[in-house]
Amino acid sequence: MLLVQKYGGTSVGNLDRIAHVAKKVAKAKAEGHDVVVVVSAMSGETNKLIEWAKHFSPTPSKRDMDLLLSSGERVTSALLSIALNEMGYPTVAMTGRQAGIVTDDTHTSARIERIDPKPLRQALDEGKIVVVAGFQGITPDGRVTTLGRGGSDLTAVAIAGALGADKCEIYSDVDGIYTTDPRIEPKARKLPKISYDEMLELASLGAKVLQNRSVELAKKLGVVIEAKSTFEDVPGTIITKEEEIMEKPLVSGIALDRNQARVSLQGVKDRPGIAAEIFKALANESINVDMIVQTIGHDGHTNLDFTVPQNELELVRRVMEPFGRECGSIEYDPSVAKVSVVGVGMKSHSGVAAKAFETMAQENINIEMISTSEIKISMIIDEKYSELAVRALHSAYELDR
Amino acid sequence: MLLVQKYGGTSVGNLDRIAHVAKKVAKAKAEGHDVVVVVSAMSGETNKLIEWAKHFSPTPSKRDMDLLLSSGERVTSALLSIALNEMGYPTVAMTGRQAGIVTDDTHTSARIERIDPKPLRQALDEGKIVVVAGFQGITPDGRVTTLGRGGSDLTAVAIAGALGADKCEIYSDVDGIYTTDPRIEPKARKLPKISYDEMLELASLGAKVLQNRSVELAKKLGVVIEAKSTFEDVPGTIITKEEEIMEKPLVSGIALDRNQARVSLQGVKDRPGIAAEIFKALANESINVDMIVQTIGHDGHTNLDFTVPQNELELVRRVMEPFGRECGSIEYDPSVAKVSVVGVGMKSHSGVAAKAFETMAQENINIEMISTSEIKISMIIDEKYSELAVRALHSAYELDR
Repeated sequence: MLLVQKYGGTSVGNLDRIAHVAKKVAKAKAEGHDVVVVVSAMSGETNKLIEWAKHFSPTPSKRDMDLLLSSGERVTSALLSIALNEMGYPTVAMTGRQAGIVTDDTHTSARIERIDPKPLRQALDEGKIVVVAGFQGITPDGRVTTLGRGGSDLTAVAIAGALGADKCEIYSDVDGIYTTDPRIEPKARKLPKISYDEMLELASLGAKVLQNRSVELAKKLGVVIEAKSTFEDVPGTIITKEEEIMEKPLVSGIALDRNQARVSLQGVKDRPGIAAEIFKALANESINVDMIVQTIGHDGHTNLDFTVPQNELELVRRVMEPFGRECGSIEYDPSVAKVSVVGVGMKSHSGVAAKAFETMAQENINIEMISTSEIKISMIIDEKYSELAVRALHSAYELDR
Repeated sequence: MLLVQKYGGTSVGNLDRIAHVAKKVAKAKAEGHDVVVVVSAMSGETNKLIEWAKHFSPTPSKRDMDLLLSSGERVTSALLSIALNEMGYPTVAMTGRQAGIVTDDTHTSARIERIDPKPLRQALDEGKIVVVAGFQGITPDGRVTTLGRGGSDLTAVAIAGALGADKCEIYSDVDGIYTTDPRIEPKARKLPKISYDEMLELASLGAKVLQNRSVELAKKLGVVIEAKSTFEDVPGTIITKEEEIMEKPLVSGIALDRNQARVSLQGVKDRPGIAAEIFKALANESINVDMIVQTIGHDGHTNLDFTVPQNELELVRRVMEPFGRECGSIEYDPSVAKVSVVGVGMKSHSGVAAKAFETMAQENINIEMISTSEIKISMIIDEKYSELAVRALHSAYELDR
């Protein structure tokens, strides 16, 4: 097999851990696999560098930040290469540039435009383990860029795609994706397999493991991901195409997002373009609107509800002020949460939504907003019922079995 | 003027010092100069990285070491660029690669093969301060290399040469080149100007300021260097072509090298090739032979004296063993020192050497070996007379005036 393995900052957080990672990589090679390893900066290093930059400027140029921050991954890749060499494994350590990763010029959150797999393939053909500094690339004209949050995952997925790797293993201190947050529901089970789309919808469960950007890229490139633990030698969760999952469970998991606040506009004048104006104003301030629900108007008036990140509510209030005249009333509720039931199985089964609403009713939890997609039912509820709702739904869909 | 300024590890040793360097660079720019700044890694960083590498392997691959060690200069260049930007000066931070520095593939001590000055010149034409990560380059096929000891000085001198800069200022915690070591002779004076050749011969005085490799490169490229203090705003020492120095002093300085041991072969069979064999054997062990003196043989026998670094004497003993049969006797003296009188003026003046020997005689210091070049007289003496010899010569040539 051709494996791409990615080890995050905690996994390479000190010299002992890098030695541990070297052993894991060596084992995969010794088992006969071709291995490309992608590493992050040692945990703490990137924050230290950011602090140093802030010492000089509250708004350092993004180009300089890229040059600064890309140094951390270089250190880890060189150290891991040295460790593997000492164990008798020939290696090549590569920067993002050397690994052929070309990005656009959006400094600090560049997009990978293409990968020239030649240098990687040549090193693999020579029997070497390739150790790549994650999180970084260069622009076509040679400037150093970084890929933003979760950037090393992107590097790994993109390389796996470019090489047609059999699997991209993402190692972290979390051993997979669970049916729900085990801190809320101790009966949560690790999912053996999950589809890309489910993973995207379960973002709040998987955020610590894998950013949505990487899942989207994996979906696009058809890269099979396994989210695994660096520290425990147990199977993780496979993230793959829906078609690869034989037994599609009705529901795969229950996600919870507490960083939600609800804005309710009642009695909005039902004229064309009003919604567009409101959401444009919010977008101009880079406010990420999540759920939007509009109920059909009568008497030329309509109700419009939407949710925003809780920590941006004050900014939202200011943006909404000019719209006060056109709305009968604007209500803000900072203490709501979004509970989502996710599963590809619900595409072909009816009654999944009904069970969710029924479960909420049984627990006397009022549903303030509902939004559904093909594979997800999301409900906005009072934040204080969050844990109760998650546990009730987890049990209702028999996810603990 | 077009200035290249280089700041060493101590000069950028912490965030406050980087801020101080930013002020110095800004001042030069504000005075109307075009400025390229070359920076080293923050002092301590390189040693930390070397220690980390040694944690994994006593003999890490040089290629990996280059990737590892080149990260330190990137950090400093990004931080200095951020600091200058915040002060309102537009900058471009560049890696060795981006600055167009192409080297051979001798990892950890690569030689600069060429510099493509286009990116540097373009940035300067745009009115920007260019901040270059020193010590590093890339091979024609794109591998990261470092230039070895004094590498950032080499970067600065090479860039100054490629751009035809008016001056290359080398900043460190030493404010120039002195007539001799001020710790030995407090009356030592700072030299306002010195020729490349004198600087090369005074290596032991200038080693903390500038490695010989950089002086040789400056001589080759005709780059005028000024060795200056980062921390005191006083003129330093200009290192330039002999022709640029109007008043050539008879003697510029007195150098002392304590790391010397003497090997004396007496009654060596005077057959062709014997010296070659001995020095080849020493070269095979990378032993750096310094002075060599052979006296004309009689009776088919000759005397051969040479000096080696004191800390390599044990190795020398082992290498010399097989030659014992051909030599009447081999003597080793670990406690000698080399005192050198250096000055371009002595080319055109007689009596300089005589005065040196006379001075030694007056102080009752026995001269064990003598070696002369056009601009230098070196004497091997008992180490215990080192300071006395330096002070006596310093005074004899009136260097304290």
